Amino acid sequence: VSVTFPRGFRAAGTTAGMKPSGRPDLGLLVADPVQSVAGLFTTNAFAAAPVRLSTRRLSRGVPHAVVVNSGQANAGTGLRGDHDAEQTTALVAEALQLDASDVLACSTGVIGEPLHMEQYLGAIPGLVSSLSDAGGDAFAEAIMTTDAVPKVAAAERAGYRVGGCAKGVGMIAPDLQLATMLVFITTDAPVPPSDIRLLATETLEPRFESLTVDACTSTNDTVLLLSSGAAGGDLVVSGTDAWVELTAAVDEVATSLLLQLAADAEGANHVILVEVSGAESEQHAQAVAREVAESILVKTAVFGGDPNPGRILQAIGSSGVPFLPQLVDGFIGDVQVIAAGEIAPSYFDGGDEAARLALVEEREVVVSVSLGNGQGRSRMIGVDLSYDYVKINAEYST
Amino acid sequence: VSVTFPRGFRAAGTTAGMKPSGRPDLGLLVADPVQSVAGLFTTNAFAAAPVRLSTRRLSRGVPHAVVVNSGQANAGTGLRGDHDAEQTTALVAEALQLDASDVLACSTGVIGEPLHMEQYLGAIPGLVSSLSDAGGDAFAEAIMTTDAVPKVAAAERAGYRVGGCAKGVGMIAPDLQLATMLVFITTDAPVPPSDIRLLATETLEPRFESLTVDACTSTNDTVLLLSSGAAGGDLVVSGTDAWVELTAAVDEVATSLLLQLAADAEGANHVILVEVSGAESEQHAQAVAREVAESILVKTAVFGGDPNPGRILQAIGSSGVPFLPQLVDGFIGDVQVIAAGEIAPSYFDGGDEAARLALVEEREVVVSVSLGNGQGRSRMIGVDLSYDYVKINAEYST
Repeated sequence: VSVTFPRGFRAAGTTAGMKPSGRPDLGLLVADPVQSVAGLFTTNAFAAAPVRLSTRRLSRGVPHAVVVNSGQANAGTGLRGDHDAEQTTALVAEALQLDASDVLACSTGVIGEPLHMEQYLGAIPGLVSSLSDAGGDAFAEAIMTTDAVPKVAAAERAGYRVGGCAKGVGMIAPDLQLATMLVFITTDAPVPPSDIRLLATETLEPRFESLTVDACTSTNDTVLLLSSGAAGGDLVVSGTDAWVELTAAVDEVATSLLLQLAADAEGANHVILVEVSGAESEQHAQAVAREVAESILVKTAVFGGDPNPGRILQAIGSSGVPFLPQLVDGFIGDVQVIAAGEIAPSYFDGGDEAARLALVEEREVVVSVSLGNGQGRSRMIGVDLSYDYVKINAEYST
Repeated sequence: VSVTFPRGFRAAGTTAGMKPSGRPDLGLLVADPVQSVAGLFTTNAFAAAPVRLSTRRLSRGVPHAVVVNSGQANAGTGLRGDHDAEQTTALVAEALQLDASDVLACSTGVIGEPLHMEQYLGAIPGLVSSLSDAGGDAFAEAIMTTDAVPKVAAAERAGYRVGGCAKGVGMIAPDLQLATMLVFITTDAPVPPSDIRLLATETLEPRFESLTVDACTSTNDTVLLLSSGAAGGDLVVSGTDAWVELTAAVDEVATSLLLQLAADAEGANHVILVEVSGAESEQHAQAVAREVAESILVKTAVFGGDPNPGRILQAIGSSGVPFLPQLVDGFIGDVQVIAAGEIAPSYFDGGDEAARLALVEEREVVVSVSLGNGQGRSRMIGVDLSYDYVKINAEYST
């Protein structure tokens, strides 16, 4: 599984010693051959040095390899950060007999702390020599920070393989492009450079934009989609049957990674799926869904096992989206808690207990809202807010 | 002190028995005579019944009285809620020998729960008969929900008196007009109806919009400004010296109430004053200040006594405001933590400890950011996010 499930990819992970925990902290992924690459990056104005380097190199060529370190984010590190990112990718390129411009970089960890260059550079030769087509799991482990478990997924359709891995437990919010989330998705389907970006923006971007852990957009978010083309055959381009199959496989991997990211979110006991329908447009539906999913009053209520439809109603109303209050319905699981813009009368007649059970007995809580205003629908994936979230974030420097 | 400090106001508070805690839950404030009234209300689409009633009556006349209950928000209660609000104000009007249209209503408490009408109506005669010009403190206590202390303030300038009280500990966020915040400000200065709204929008609105406890805009937020005119003398109109004096007194009372609200916010150990300067415009400065003040990563870091400049940098960068990263400076108290867009080198050389002390030793933490991009400045008042915030909001139904 993971990123080496598709043919034409090698990966590796090692412990360079840059992380205080002493766990694996350096990973390398190489497409060989490479057909095409696309990337989605954070919109944060303080984008990290590796984000700026990768954005630049992706715009000019078809990079073959990506080196990823965990422990230091190499963000807020100024010119030194740029220089360090250049140097690490140059050494990787040399060991792989590639041009430096063929190597991308990702970093995740503490913002402001410079890369521990001695350990980083010292580990590169060993990392390169351990590259293998079974290295996907080692790579997935090396990119973790406070993640409890690695997130990996794989799918196969119409002879095309898609693999992926991701890391991220906090500082995750949607903002055109995503958050402290690193996601790597590989495929052996031969997608030409002209179409891979479309696959990324049409299939991956909306998926990863629907995840909001804490409404904070990171400096380092990166999603890379790499095609080796090793499956052979005709080029897979937009509008063909093969494209539909490949899109479905990529979607399957992305959705799996997304739910794994939410389930492992810092301190989260519940994943909250907010499904909004009946909005005037998809944008309106998304705005309402985001307001509910990011409301810390809703998040703490879910943590406390309190259905609290009043807070859901308050969040819907503060979204800025126009609608008629008296047409709004809302459900927790299958239990109606908002009816015609009021707390459902049944809620005060036993419905509260049914709603409470729908919360506490499910790890994935579904909150659905119908605005009665049109055909627009959208979904956001959030998580509850627990003591552990506060504990982790009050005690850990990111 | 409180709302009966200015001449021409009577107030009262009593225990009607609508709140499970058995604490005072019904208050009444009457201007006698009344010169003018202005109100600011929530923008939440699910505005509570009393908000809709008060908005309507304010637009058509000069109401004399406002009755306030705590315990039930009378929001999400549909037509029954409208009917209940009409009925309570009608009974108050009758006892005061006023027209029903002269009485405003405010509610705060659990959303969706109907008013406990039997207790509410039963308590009105006693409430009216206990009205007195020393009743301001009883009124301030009756409007509390989970507030630990009443918030009251008073100021006097150029012979004009201004008094005020407020309640609100959560569901507070700025949104054109405010949040589960009820604020009552009275003055005996004779401000004509044509100018009182200006005083409210120019002086009160920006003040109360700068407070963000949890980024959640309530269904019930109301700020009322009442003039009795009992100080006598010339009408106080915009552009006069008297106006400047009155504005200063109103500002003093508003600012005091604001800081009291922040200090008593649910679970808050620190008030966070985010001051942004050097923005292209005031709007840009406010957007950056809000992003920092509402970042739950910044809030939990402050709670944990962790200066964490990386999270401040991340929040600045995700505001969507354009600026040059290399011109950005940031301070915690007097300690520089961001210099020229990077974590300040001094931070890694003892500055972290100085910044930590600036956090843990002050109840009011000042985070200042300079964008180096212009003359725009703004300030937001936020609070930290503690275990107690989660505890209160996971266990209490609002």
